[in-house]
Amino acid sequence: MSSTPAPSSPANDLLLRALRREAVERPPVWMMRQAGRYLPQYRAVRAKSDFLTMCRTPELAVEVTLQPLDLVGVDAAIIFSDILVIPEAMGMHLTLDEGIGPQFPSPLRSLKDLDQLHAVDPQEHLKYVLDALKLARREIDGKVPLIGFAGSPWTLAAYMVEGKGTKQFAVAKRMLYENPEMAHALLGKIADAVGEYLVAQVGAGAQVVQLFESWAGALGPEEFRTFALPYLARCAQKAREAGVPVIVFAPGAGWALAEIAAATNADAIGVDWHTSPMDARRQLDPFRVAMQGNLDPCALYGPPAEIRRRTHAMIRAFGPIGHIANLGHGILPDVSPDHARAFIDAVKEWKWTEEEIAAAQRQTAAWTNELAGAR
Amino acid sequence: MSSTPAPSSPANDLLLRALRREAVERPPVWMMRQAGRYLPQYRAVRAKSDFLTMCRTPELAVEVTLQPLDLVGVDAAIIFSDILVIPEAMGMHLTLDEGIGPQFPSPLRSLKDLDQLHAVDPQEHLKYVLDALKLARREIDGKVPLIGFAGSPWTLAAYMVEGKGTKQFAVAKRMLYENPEMAHALLGKIADAVGEYLVAQVGAGAQVVQLFESWAGALGPEEFRTFALPYLARCAQKAREAGVPVIVFAPGAGWALAEIAAATNADAIGVDWHTSPMDARRQLDPFRVAMQGNLDPCALYGPPAEIRRRTHAMIRAFGPIGHIANLGHGILPDVSPDHARAFIDAVKEWKWTEEEIAAAQRQTAAWTNELAGAR
Repeated sequence: MSSTPAPSSPANDLLLRALRREAVERPPVWMMRQAGRYLPQYRAVRAKSDFLTMCRTPELAVEVTLQPLDLVGVDAAIIFSDILVIPEAMGMHLTLDEGIGPQFPSPLRSLKDLDQLHAVDPQEHLKYVLDALKLARREIDGKVPLIGFAGSPWTLAAYMVEGKGTKQFAVAKRMLYENPEMAHALLGKIADAVGEYLVAQVGAGAQVVQLFESWAGALGPEEFRTFALPYLARCAQKAREAGVPVIVFAPGAGWALAEIAAATNADAIGVDWHTSPMDARRQLDPFRVAMQGNLDPCALYGPPAEIRRRTHAMIRAFGPIGHIANLGHGILPDVSPDHARAFIDAVKEWKWTEEEIAAAQRQTAAWTNELAGAR
Repeated sequence: MSSTPAPSSPANDLLLRALRREAVERPPVWMMRQAGRYLPQYRAVRAKSDFLTMCRTPELAVEVTLQPLDLVGVDAAIIFSDILVIPEAMGMHLTLDEGIGPQFPSPLRSLKDLDQLHAVDPQEHLKYVLDALKLARREIDGKVPLIGFAGSPWTLAAYMVEGKGTKQFAVAKRMLYENPEMAHALLGKIADAVGEYLVAQVGAGAQVVQLFESWAGALGPEEFRTFALPYLARCAQKAREAGVPVIVFAPGAGWALAEIAAATNADAIGVDWHTSPMDARRQLDPFRVAMQGNLDPCALYGPPAEIRRRTHAMIRAFGPIGHIANLGHGILPDVSPDHARAFIDAVKEWKWTEEEIAAAQRQTAAWTNELAGAR
């Protein structure tokens, strides 16, 4: 099964092929937060501008977006931005300090606060992200795919109500239990904004989009199904309709992978580092969905030989069909770039044999027949 | 199947019977952190003494230990203390402020630091806890069982190396990846201390002990199996040999319940609120182990009618055999005592019918035969 890239496909189309579950000799690889503080070249840009200025200045955002392509050799670029640009575009004042983390000094606490949120016109309120995407596409010049992203409604709502990242998101969860109607009204508004934003990102050049449900782990099963999954699914659907593959990453909800695949129809499901590849495949193989992940970011603290061993064990466990190598969470700021490269290089030296690929394809086909027979 | 309490059994022996998986009309109920800040009566004691003074003064510790028996009506008392008394007994300086959380101002970072830890003689270094247990048993006067507890080696090691609670425990995890030999040496020392401590607690009157692996969720599967589970199992074994039932609670490791049951031989496994009762039973029913949990502590923010509905749904899902009703994590400080009582009352008004109990027993028996046949 060979792939024929469409004319607009990037020269390195490994990511797009893996998302279609086509055969690849080795998995594509990128890292969440790959444009980040572990790179001295990123810190040099950051030393001259604060984080939000970097987000809002397309030239700076694109400069750091491109850094990991050459410096560590990843197979895809992800636009430098932040999930909290959406609440800000809805009218909330955002402060973002890398030491303290992002904060909304006036968090959303009442229906009146909610009424003051306005609808988002991405061309107006988020033009700087769209400009950055356009510029990044030009600069990448067809070498690798460009990934856009957004936060999921529950995750954004949790930040907006809480005002900042917390351990338990008890204020936001109190809203779910005390005032579910207000929660649904807020989540619906956010889902509309995120949907529009993803469509605009695709229009501006994003070839793949990833949805981050970063605070999935703050919810138990019943609340996840009620307050997170329907809105996540609505956003994923909107992006799929815009014509690009969608990756959904919901760290802390390893128990829910099958439900997420079923509800979102995503092309790939991100797997966090808490979840074993075996467990992910048990849940996801029946959905014929690609899987992205999942080396523990802390594993990059270990010696390079050990990083290589763990990376290869992970690749073998996910198998040759539809795997996108990545960390199971964002890369940590105090990781050495050499160790990040050791991870990337370990993926790039991997080679599935034709026999291994053929065996995996036979297994998939047999399973498909079995499922068809069972119907 | 009726239970005949031994002479030393408490009048209310629901907890002990559920731990033996005997038939009970309704599950026993207690709450993690039930002697805590949500009670105005606790805050009144706390206003006059700092947290560590309360831990170290048996009269104060026992006063707050007993408060929830009358005030909310739980079926068991758990001694008021903290898991970090063990690192302190090993020689580390501990500060504990409820605003900031516990801290070790000089965290453990080198083999030299490790060499300075000393073995723990509970009768000498932790006499104040043992005295509190003895006093609590006298005051409880045979009404309900008294639970002792300790932190698990990985959790204590994470605090000792990190110096404080953090989001990712990246410093402690760096040790696991960079210097696994040092990690094992530290974990072995802690396991010895915790084992001795649990035995001493039983000697002082604890009728059940619970092991808290509070930072289980900081580890991926391979690291959990390597650095947490063997040491947790060693401590649990030690407590079982001392003759009391053991409850193991490892929040954030819902994927590992079966492995924890197999490795620790615990009488009950705590189930956190991320894990559905159905998932817990799928993993644990084959081990014939009791299960404790698991209402989301944030559910107590909801209206009492909703607390009752959720509590009853949880009880039904766990079934009549070997369930101990509890929250799926510690009760939050800003929960109203009325809402805590709504939870306790909802459990107490539950009544399994004889038919439901008999059906569950038949199911268990059938399953046992099936397993026996498969061997």
